[in-house]
Amino acid sequence: MRELEFIEWIYSQGRFDPAVVPVGPGDDLAVVQVGPEGLLAGTDQVLDGVHFILGEHGPRAGGRKAMARNLSDVAAMAALPLAALATVSLPKGLSRHDAQEIYLGMREIGDVFDCPLIGGDMGSWAHPLAISVTILARPRGISPVLRSGAKPGDAICVTGHFGGAWRSPRHLLFTPRIAEARVLAGQFGLHAMIDVSDGLARDLGHVCRASGLGAQVNAAAVPVSAAAGPAGLAAALHDGEDYELLFTLSEEDANTLLDTQPLGVSVSRIGTMTPGEDMVLIDSAGRRKPLRPGGWEHQT
Amino acid sequence: MRELEFIEWIYSQGRFDPAVVPVGPGDDLAVVQVGPEGLLAGTDQVLDGVHFILGEHGPRAGGRKAMARNLSDVAAMAALPLAALATVSLPKGLSRHDAQEIYLGMREIGDVFDCPLIGGDMGSWAHPLAISVTILARPRGISPVLRSGAKPGDAICVTGHFGGAWRSPRHLLFTPRIAEARVLAGQFGLHAMIDVSDGLARDLGHVCRASGLGAQVNAAAVPVSAAAGPAGLAAALHDGEDYELLFTLSEEDANTLLDTQPLGVSVSRIGTMTPGEDMVLIDSAGRRKPLRPGGWEHQT
Repeated sequence: MRELEFIEWIYSQGRFDPAVVPVGPGDDLAVVQVGPEGLLAGTDQVLDGVHFILGEHGPRAGGRKAMARNLSDVAAMAALPLAALATVSLPKGLSRHDAQEIYLGMREIGDVFDCPLIGGDMGSWAHPLAISVTILARPRGISPVLRSGAKPGDAICVTGHFGGAWRSPRHLLFTPRIAEARVLAGQFGLHAMIDVSDGLARDLGHVCRASGLGAQVNAAAVPVSAAAGPAGLAAALHDGEDYELLFTLSEEDANTLLDTQPLGVSVSRIGTMTPGEDMVLIDSAGRRKPLRPGGWEHQT
Repeated sequence: MRELEFIEWIYSQGRFDPAVVPVGPGDDLAVVQVGPEGLLAGTDQVLDGVHFILGEHGPRAGGRKAMARNLSDVAAMAALPLAALATVSLPKGLSRHDAQEIYLGMREIGDVFDCPLIGGDMGSWAHPLAISVTILARPRGISPVLRSGAKPGDAICVTGHFGGAWRSPRHLLFTPRIAEARVLAGQFGLHAMIDVSDGLARDLGHVCRASGLGAQVNAAAVPVSAAAGPAGLAAALHDGEDYELLFTLSEEDANTLLDTQPLGVSVSRIGTMTPGEDMVLIDSAGRRKPLRPGGWEHQT
């Protein structure tokens, strides 16, 4: 069973009252109707041996990543974090110092965004470390940018560079693109956005499916990270763990954005949203081939 | 390291802006300032082999318990649940059917309280099942009842019976006392409340510490469950996993409550809050001895 298949089964089970849950599961965060603007909420876990390696990266890196993954989902909605909660299953025999390091890792990146840890639960067992973080966030004047709002003809843009993050410190030390997302959504008419954790192709696929559209991507326009290694473009398209933003907006807005480059990180246009449902990669010779999600996915 | 000690270290690290987080970690749920009434949030996990046994109790029971533990925290604040989020670490090789059962167990008890599952994350690993649930709740006209509000002279009351829950189906099949808590807090002036998960003595200790008070408990007044077995009173005081409510209120309100018994479950007065910080157990011969928390606690 693949994660996506199971998650889609779960969605099919849900019955949501839109007056209470305007945006249900399936986006980076859900939206519940609390207060004048609504509240955003989501959850993500970090498992030793799956998302990081305790013995290699250390407990602080695990705590930091668990919090940062969730903050990256806040960025994907162009929201601002409010507070976080965490559960931790500690391997028996882990020292008090290491347990504190997990907490301090969460705080290290949470504090950057004034996101306090307001609740938690800790258990101990004879098995590896699991850290689960739930994030609460607020729109604060910017409507949440969903995956489902892309329009045919939209430019597809990304922040930063892609590929090799898992083999570099980046997947542990990234700073979620919250500030960048607020600038983008505040100054440009973003139609759809997602953070790239599963892989550029796979996450673009999520936007396509949610928006009922296809996409064409220009291979030469994909910003490949130096960390991508010899695999180059393939690594950039499929590795995942980049925690960059992928978003769509009108051609006109995209041109202004690309000209002005208002962020501290470069923005690149990698392609165009198209009618239909196919994702196509266009190489430098103009040849078209199917772009299939081959990114990193939790296998179940 | 004991859980309490570590949790207290975490509290000591936190800096909370009371305009944003009026009630930080340390109560059953935290309160964040969203909307006119505030939002409550908390998180609790269920680990295979610690809180339930997958091979014996089945996946649905694990999902149900993970959700029900959190709903019991909502009851302890006299709030109403709004929505929940969950992460699950699935043991590799678990069938799709079993994974669905976990989800359906969460839904089974969530649906009773109109508490939809609005977000989640699933990972797979070669280790046991861990389920982490975060709950969001609202006051809905009743101010959250904290652990810290008990007053000297308050009657200490409880719902239901205590002891042996871990050896009975109760710890898996309990219905969180949300309806009862709403009646109690809506009709009586509750000063403090907690749900009894760690054990009657230990959870009373949490109320004493948070309120800066002591307590005396009349041994003969403690309602001992038939499931408590030969250990009797000791099991009732220390076993935990009862998921009943413990609360304090004025002598006058308590008398009215005990006379009218407005709940479907019996309410008993077990003792009185006292100045100082000692917890004392008074036996049937009038002898006083220290009441020490000996309840179930996650060891770390």
